Amino acid sequence: MRAVVYHGPGQKAFEEVPDPEITDDGDVIVRVDATTICGTDLHILGGDLPEVRAGRILGHEAVGTVHDAGSAVHTMGEGDRVLVSCISACGACRYCRESHYGQCLGGGWILGHTYDGTQADYVRIPFADTSTYRIPAGVTDEHALMLADILPTGYEVGVLNGGVNPGDVVAIVGSGPVGLAAIMGARLFSPSHIVAIDVADRRLEAAKEFGADVTVNNGITDPLQAIQALTDGLGADVTIEAVGKPETFELAVRLTRPGARVANVGVHGKPAALHLEDQWIRDITISTGLVDTYSTPMLLRLLATGQLDPSKLITHRFGLDDFDEAYEVFSRPADTGALKVVLSR
Amino acid sequence: MRAVVYHGPGQKAFEEVPDPEITDDGDVIVRVDATTICGTDLHILGGDLPEVRAGRILGHEAVGTVHDAGSAVHTMGEGDRVLVSCISACGACRYCRESHYGQCLGGGWILGHTYDGTQADYVRIPFADTSTYRIPAGVTDEHALMLADILPTGYEVGVLNGGVNPGDVVAIVGSGPVGLAAIMGARLFSPSHIVAIDVADRRLEAAKEFGADVTVNNGITDPLQAIQALTDGLGADVTIEAVGKPETFELAVRLTRPGARVANVGVHGKPAALHLEDQWIRDITISTGLVDTYSTPMLLRLLATGQLDPSKLITHRFGLDDFDEAYEVFSRPADTGALKVVLSR
Amino acid sequence: MRAVVYHGPGQKAFEEVPDPEITDDGDVIVRVDATTICGTDLHILGGDLPEVRAGRILGHEAVGTVHDAGSAVHTMGEGDRVLVSCISACGACRYCRESHYGQCLGGGWILGHTYDGTQADYVRIPFADTSTYRIPAGVTDEHALMLADILPTGYEVGVLNGGVNPGDVVAIVGSGPVGLAAIMGARLFSPSHIVAIDVADRRLEAAKEFGADVTVNNGITDPLQAIQALTDGLGADVTIEAVGKPETFELAVRLTRPGARVANVGVHGKPAALHLEDQWIRDITISTGLVDTYSTPMLLRLLATGQLDPSKLITHRFGLDDFDEAYEVFSRPADTGALKVVLSR
Amino acid sequence: MRAVVYHGPGQKAFEEVPDPEITDDGDVIVRVDATTICGTDLHILGGDLPEVRAGRILGHEAVGTVHDAGSAVHTMGEGDRVLVSCISACGACRYCRESHYGQCLGGGWILGHTYDGTQADYVRIPFADTSTYRIPAGVTDEHALMLADILPTGYEVGVLNGGVNPGDVVAIVGSGPVGLAAIMGARLFSPSHIVAIDVADRRLEAAKEFGADVTVNNGITDPLQAIQALTDGLGADVTIEAVGKPETFELAVRLTRPGARVANVGVHGKPAALHLEDQWIRDITISTGLVDTYSTPMLLRLLATGQLDPSKLITHRFGLDDFDEAYEVFSRPADTGALKVVLSR
Repeated sequence: MRAVVYHGPGQKAFEEVPDPEITDDGDVIVRVDATTICGTDLHILGGDLPEVRAGRILGHEAVGTVHDAGSAVHTMGEGDRVLVSCISACGACRYCRESHYGQCLGGGWILGHTYDGTQADYVRIPFADTSTYRIPAGVTDEHALMLADILPTGYEVGVLNGGVNPGDVVAIVGSGPVGLAAIMGARLFSPSHIVAIDVADRRLEAAKEFGADVTVNNGITDPLQAIQALTDGLGADVTIEAVGKPETFELAVRLTRPGARVANVGVHGKPAALHLEDQWIRDITISTGLVDTYSTPMLLRLLATGQLDPSKLITHRFGLDDFDEAYEVFSRPADTGALKVVLSR
Repeated sequence: MRAVVYHGPGQKAFEEVPDPEITDDGDVIVRVDATTICGTDLHILGGDLPEVRAGRILGHEAVGTVHDAGSAVHTMGEGDRVLVSCISACGACRYCRESHYGQCLGGGWILGHTYDGTQADYVRIPFADTSTYRIPAGVTDEHALMLADILPTGYEVGVLNGGVNPGDVVAIVGSGPVGLAAIMGARLFSPSHIVAIDVADRRLEAAKEFGADVTVNNGITDPLQAIQALTDGLGADVTIEAVGKPETFELAVRLTRPGARVANVGVHGKPAALHLEDQWIRDITISTGLVDTYSTPMLLRLLATGQLDPSKLITHRFGLDDFDEAYEVFSRPADTGALKVVLSR
Repeated sequence: MRAVVYHGPGQKAFEEVPDPEITDDGDVIVRVDATTICGTDLHILGGDLPEVRAGRILGHEAVGTVHDAGSAVHTMGEGDRVLVSCISACGACRYCRESHYGQCLGGGWILGHTYDGTQADYVRIPFADTSTYRIPAGVTDEHALMLADILPTGYEVGVLNGGVNPGDVVAIVGSGPVGLAAIMGARLFSPSHIVAIDVADRRLEAAKEFGADVTVNNGITDPLQAIQALTDGLGADVTIEAVGKPETFELAVRLTRPGARVANVGVHGKPAALHLEDQWIRDITISTGLVDTYSTPMLLRLLATGQLDPSKLITHRFGLDDFDEAYEVFSRPADTGALKVVLSR
Repeated sequence: MRAVVYHGPGQKAFEEVPDPEITDDGDVIVRVDATTICGTDLHILGGDLPEVRAGRILGHEAVGTVHDAGSAVHTMGEGDRVLVSCISACGACRYCRESHYGQCLGGGWILGHTYDGTQADYVRIPFADTSTYRIPAGVTDEHALMLADILPTGYEVGVLNGGVNPGDVVAIVGSGPVGLAAIMGARLFSPSHIVAIDVADRRLEAAKEFGADVTVNNGITDPLQAIQALTDGLGADVTIEAVGKPETFELAVRLTRPGARVANVGVHGKPAALHLEDQWIRDITISTGLVDTYSTPMLLRLLATGQLDPSKLITHRFGLDDFDEAYEVFSRPADTGALKVVLSR
């Protein structure tokens, strides 16, 4: 089969490789019908994740069809249409028992990381019963694919960790794909205002389409004033950080009211300053997290009933052979406007 | 009457001042029967809180007897024995409606801060109905006094914000008075282990008496090994920071397992580094906070039934005239072993 | 002034009575600008609440203007526009401290019950600081009036007690005014389906307008099949009882899936059978409750931002002198289609 | 091997049967080292559970040693010492994903019910990775055995569903084995009072040993007065029903204060009356439930650290051949004083 293989920092190739095989009774082999590229894949190519070794097939998101199933797989069989989640869960460890699948002691984020991934014709999925999801009739591959990582990430790590409630003023720092997913998720809880904050006007335009009602370009204006105007001077009820830089995290903390929550979704490479000399007295709660995908079945229900429409996230579509072009487009979002790209059979 | 008056950084005097008078129908005047000194009072004397103006009577903790009550006070009258809490709550603002009294928009921590305080013969208490507590029969002045600030602080900001649950491994960084109060509070939830961490062996001895079953002198040993030995290598379920320095906060974060909570109780003067490059993926939750005193009625019930014995916190007793000596003893805990000092009529 | 006075079962008169006066420093006198009639008022007239004595002015919902304020009232003054809530809260008792204002030991539902009420030109409101709400600019009297009782009741006792979450299948038994308010409130949390159940097709039509996507006339069809079809045979995630009869409560319990929640909003006059022989093993949670109005400030924010539009609840409008006709219309909803009637100055 | 086989209502025999064999790759065969008898086994023998067919091996609690493991079992192997839980969990269904293992769509309570059980030399355990627990060194078979059903049942269904908190007044109706387990569990949260209520003085004596500080024989005295005396006339904060009769459930509801929780643990055979005409306005929450065993790993930690001592529950000990005598003793607790009987190798 063909697959996108990582060959060390800056190097990848879409090339012929051996087909995957079942190595444990709980595995399935899935034929990939649609997959996508994540910002994390670019980080791997940038050399930021040295635990990813040369020879690894990239990708941790897919929708596909079960091609073969191990003897201990109970919930699906050959021919079933499934969502392959970015998180693989053993189902039995302490974290899995608490629905903290992202922290699974034997799994977690392993696809395209420490196991071969989904940017291929076929992929082996370990712990299949607890790591894949049957796709309801009427849900398209493209829509389901948005549940492999980005929508549950924005929803769980941003919206639920942030505790968004009806009537809240929610500030979301960063309007890239994950920030937009968080906006979509926050809307499910009927906040009174969603304030999108970014340095690119183009992304702020997108934020409005996704459900932000106030936008602030923080390259130009300090968003604190806009937030205070909406909150009797107090600050945001919830702030979601969706960038991953010290300055955006520090901004997210600064925009909160006493008693507020800051949900960090961004992937960070450096420490941030936590201004405890101001914040120790302000009753704030800061959360971090990798997606667990415990919300995936519920999000599938919302897709099936049309309550959630992720089409807007998909800006480019390619065939399953067009990985080179897809990577090219996805890696230059300022030029291409790419949010999520879909490669499908 | 006589009172401890702040006269600018480094200067205070126990001197004659005018008696307080009712200025609002919701006020009471309380005759102080017992009071104490808080570490915060030393910070004020050190000049760290410039909003405290010269001429201010210090102190925010007292037990006393109602001497006079405004016409709108409904829950107490002359002669009633009351606990004066460090937090004054208007009862009507957004924060008071959510039991976040510490963030009250018209009150909060005001006594001995922006209002005259309790280190005096009499004190005026605004919003009396929502800022004082009738003391049940059988609860001594000394025991009740420990509920004016230190016990609810350790309990709410440390134990409840930290979400201590039965079976948890709880690490408490700092075994000063507030850290010890957090140990007492944590014991109410039957953790499997409480690990006390401090650089002074004398304080670690106290920690054992208060309920810690493991102690680590972090001036000598990295406590991470001790924690890992108790947790299959994962880290603490809950960490409580009760010092207020960047390095102790950073230690508290480092000791946690994925999915854990860090409750900051310490009063900080400088920013700490938050190592988001490690923590973004680890599902941790960090909380800060000023005490709200929502737990005070419940803690009074535990005192009344003998479930909580705060006697061990009281190391020195003085008469109400002995403020100079009490400050002297309290400000040199390394020499005197002072935890809480009580001055009583 | 004139007021609707209860003169014993079946008897009321709109008649001249003395103006109310301030009797406690925490009172305000409010000039009533708009008021409404509640089903509970009909129950009083029916003699079902014997604690209501002849001579009592009826009504517990109003929007008005502060006419006079006691000396201990801090949050409003003459001329301020306020919402008078059905719940009066002392602000200081155990229940008020926990935001359980409906259970206030000195207040609760007292207006038009044990205190003179709002169906009058003027009304005295005790504990004014904690029992009335300033109305934001841009919110009409009519909209605000819907927050005096019905919307917070449906939202708190139905939706929040029921724990409605995104993606849930919510069954609401009863599509009278409170059931419709619960539908509006449930929509704020993006359930996947709201199933309205009633014996009157006219009310089911209304339910659709308020946000139900499935309706079942349970006089004709057992709603269990419809619910099972939406839930893989399991049952509803949340059921809200908004009728107040044994058979509707028992239906609400029967429609749930294992692990579900049943929120009772209905006012009951008789015991219901709880089929513990079936339910003991099914992990269900049943809640009852009087509204607390802790959500009122948040609901006011949603009105102010246009997120919530209660206009649909108002079917009839009258002048403040037209109580006789308004009662007549409101007491025959099957004929008149009355949901809420508004009487305004 | 030998096993206790059910032969229809009133009939059982300890007899020779074929050894169990692995039928699914996820099974293990466990050699039973210790087992016990549950009140439910007596219900089966009484004919109350017609779904249990003649020929079924009884028993759903065991501690044992892994004798054989299917190829898809990852967490244990031959020779490992394990706790066999009363609940078998597939790990993959909707309920298992939410830690509601008791409601598992393919498992739940199946052992000694719809699958052959543990009162035998060997037992087949399906879904072994998610249905058994490795026993920590230092925990005895007898102590671990108390975690197969009774302690998690009292803790999860009684204490956690009831939301016991420090300072609460907790009323527990019924001081049989499960009521005593609930008392032990409640003590972990430091309530101010635990009031044990039963009609047998002998059981009330046991309740005191387990941690109740107040006891009431409700065959003689209405416990309401005792509860009101402890709660300023309000009622209990939490009530746990551990009998399973209409009158005890109704008593449990009647003893609560407004805003309280009633946790039903009892197994009921008949409906109870829910007095909604009184309770609709009182903000109560009633829960039912089968144990999920999500707390089992935590309870094992408490055993390992000596925080929980279940020895008091064990009143009689037998050899693994003495089922006839053990059933005889266990079925006459009024005469024998039996709480839990242990049969061990």
